Amino acid sequence: MKKILVLGAGLVARPLVRYLLEEPEFEVTVATRTLSKAETLIDRHPRGTAKSLNVEDTTALKAFISSADLVISLLPWIHHIDVAKHCIESRKHLVTTSYVKPEMQALDAEAKNSGLLFLNEIGVDPGIDHMAAMRVIDGTKKEGGEIVSFYSYCGGLPALESNNNPFGYKFSWSPVGVMLAANNNGRYLKDGQVVQVTSEKLFEHYWLVDVPGAGTFEAYVNRDAFPYIDIYGIQTVHSMYRGTLRNIGHCESWNLFKKLGLFDQDRQFPLQDMSPRRVMAELIGSDGEHLVEDMASFLGIPEYSVTIKKMAWLGLLSDHKVPLSDASPFDLLAHLMQKKLIFEDGEVDLLVQHHEFIAEFRQDRKEKITATMVETGVPGEDSAMARTVGLPAAIAAGLILKGKITLSGVQIPVVPEIYEPVLTELGTMGIGFEERRTPV
Amino acid sequence: MKKILVLGAGLVARPLVRYLLEEPEFEVTVATRTLSKAETLIDRHPRGTAKSLNVEDTTALKAFISSADLVISLLPWIHHIDVAKHCIESRKHLVTTSYVKPEMQALDAEAKNSGLLFLNEIGVDPGIDHMAAMRVIDGTKKEGGEIVSFYSYCGGLPALESNNNPFGYKFSWSPVGVMLAANNNGRYLKDGQVVQVTSEKLFEHYWLVDVPGAGTFEAYVNRDAFPYIDIYGIQTVHSMYRGTLRNIGHCESWNLFKKLGLFDQDRQFPLQDMSPRRVMAELIGSDGEHLVEDMASFLGIPEYSVTIKKMAWLGLLSDHKVPLSDASPFDLLAHLMQKKLIFEDGEVDLLVQHHEFIAEFRQDRKEKITATMVETGVPGEDSAMARTVGLPAAIAAGLILKGKITLSGVQIPVVPEIYEPVLTELGTMGIGFEERRTPV
Repeated sequence: MKKILVLGAGLVARPLVRYLLEEPEFEVTVATRTLSKAETLIDRHPRGTAKSLNVEDTTALKAFISSADLVISLLPWIHHIDVAKHCIESRKHLVTTSYVKPEMQALDAEAKNSGLLFLNEIGVDPGIDHMAAMRVIDGTKKEGGEIVSFYSYCGGLPALESNNNPFGYKFSWSPVGVMLAANNNGRYLKDGQVVQVTSEKLFEHYWLVDVPGAGTFEAYVNRDAFPYIDIYGIQTVHSMYRGTLRNIGHCESWNLFKKLGLFDQDRQFPLQDMSPRRVMAELIGSDGEHLVEDMASFLGIPEYSVTIKKMAWLGLLSDHKVPLSDASPFDLLAHLMQKKLIFEDGEVDLLVQHHEFIAEFRQDRKEKITATMVETGVPGEDSAMARTVGLPAAIAAGLILKGKITLSGVQIPVVPEIYEPVLTELGTMGIGFEERRTPV
Repeated sequence: MKKILVLGAGLVARPLVRYLLEEPEFEVTVATRTLSKAETLIDRHPRGTAKSLNVEDTTALKAFISSADLVISLLPWIHHIDVAKHCIESRKHLVTTSYVKPEMQALDAEAKNSGLLFLNEIGVDPGIDHMAAMRVIDGTKKEGGEIVSFYSYCGGLPALESNNNPFGYKFSWSPVGVMLAANNNGRYLKDGQVVQVTSEKLFEHYWLVDVPGAGTFEAYVNRDAFPYIDIYGIQTVHSMYRGTLRNIGHCESWNLFKKLGLFDQDRQFPLQDMSPRRVMAELIGSDGEHLVEDMASFLGIPEYSVTIKKMAWLGLLSDHKVPLSDASPFDLLAHLMQKKLIFEDGEVDLLVQHHEFIAEFRQDRKEKITATMVETGVPGEDSAMARTVGLPAAIAAGLILKGKITLSGVQIPVVPEIYEPVLTELGTMGIGFEERRTPV
């Protein structure tokens, strides 16, 4: 019987834990701060154990790790390095769905020397994106072709049938994390030119993408696409872009919110004494008497703009105070968004992953190859986000323990030994890509 | 056996014809220009007959009318008066789903004298809106209360799950009709003040409405609400508004399209020689070299505005000519919208009707009363639009022929003799209103 330790019991844990418990040769321990969350996940399964753990308690954390065969960390990434170091000490494999940071990469040699696999970025984005991309890329190379352009899009959204608020957005992931990402910079390669997108221009630099079977979305740049040229081994590209998908109207409104200073975490307002309306007035230096007029002129948009209606709908123009004390505009916006942009019972999310390649073959033959995954949550059960993040990690953990993945070191799922069996298993669970090829 | 003549076989005819054919005591003849359309509707039903008819052929039209017991005209309203006059001549009842125009109203006395009922406005809007409103209004009066405020909203939209284009709109009704309505004026009463909304301001004068069970929509004014104060017998109101519902972002974009002159039917461009992009440049006096920049500055919006992305998506910025010759900007816009804003197989529409009343009772007790209908089309079968327009007319025609409605003259369904049995029957077919009452 192999023992798996799952650290954390957050949004994506349920499908991961349930998948692993279905394997008769595995025992699963979920250790998390709030015991009841772990108990809910285990649901009295005979091969499951729920435990309370404060990850700051190094002794307890080490004890848990040393008694497992493999560790899956669903903790915030800040904890991954500690966990990884304990894994090296106790000689345990580690699986995370987080991006590999330099601190993690630095452990590569040590992990290799101990014959350990530290598999990261095995969720959806990063994760499924890598795997679906590499299947196309490796396939193209096998056919003697090369990838000359790669645009990759991913978005976690409300499903169409649950898209019933003026923002076209609901949080299926950490709200603060989503909002912080609004301050990212971006960079990509377009027709051989480097395109830099500063945080200030993030939501001005977007376009519409028609995704077959899903709809039309806005796409804005998702961080730096350049590292993926090497990661994917496609030094032949003249275009390499990674973008985030959102519903129509998102970028313009979030951009204007940004211009108003609503993503600012530094300024503080005494919200115990100030209404949202007064905060808005102060942000633009208005006396508040003609706030909509002043805001429109500050933003350079018409007064009737839908963005201003959205602000009102969210409560930003309200005279009613919110239950916060000293807080930033970012905190105020986060508070209001978390209150109103939520999934109600029975509502479901949508996970869209859409890759667009141009492949060049001998004799100048060119093909557009697209790979598209449209995954919708199950009403009353798991979200698409939870399934697409949690299941790849769970499947990979199973494959490692069964000896079907024998790599070592710090890895991400860009090699066939990982992506082939994981994609195949995801396919049997209904999570798959539709690939389309058209001559160009 | 009673004989019903249905004139026209347009978008809403199918549920109407099928409903009437289910009644064993009715024979239904569908007469329309294109015989095959009538044949499809009748589908070889033993009590149905499909006929070809050119309504301009008065002799043929008269012959059809004289051999029926009741006429349902689904023709464009321009034909209704001729049909009505023939109905008086042949002493036949008439049912239409169109607004009563003065020419129709002028036939009231003649119809009454002949004991004939000319029942109009018995579709959804107008139609179901009247009936649901009157049920609340008459109910309130019976309780000794009075209506002091009435906001009525209605919209024909794509259902959420079919809302997959950047406009949030699809045509479930005559596209040109929908687009012409963009040039309407509007008028309503708000807190005792008359609010005039000129055509130019139609899409600037809107607000967001949360409709329980359906989502958040934009509402803009639907023509003149004042006549409804008398029609509904609610002279006690200080607010009376009728509005059209659209998805988020609609008003801003359509307004900007209007400012560009895209709803202009007077100017002509040789589209056989000019691309849409060149038309757009000419409309704003740009040399076309920096069209997006010029357009943004012309409209007073940022260059990255989603409205400009929507234009591009629709094809308005394309260098490829469209298959039109001399045509107006309106024609160009209609052509592009009809090509892209359509329901694909399996996609469905949504009909939302939402009334919000304030009723005042003795001792200053006030209640907010809402009545909401959310009707979704059936994939592969009838649209919500077809069912909600066609079925009330069909039900009313049946009730007239069975002697259960015995009114005469030119009528609309605001009297209990009509609205009670029609709403009851619609309810048995799953088309119903949810009424909510909350103290205010």
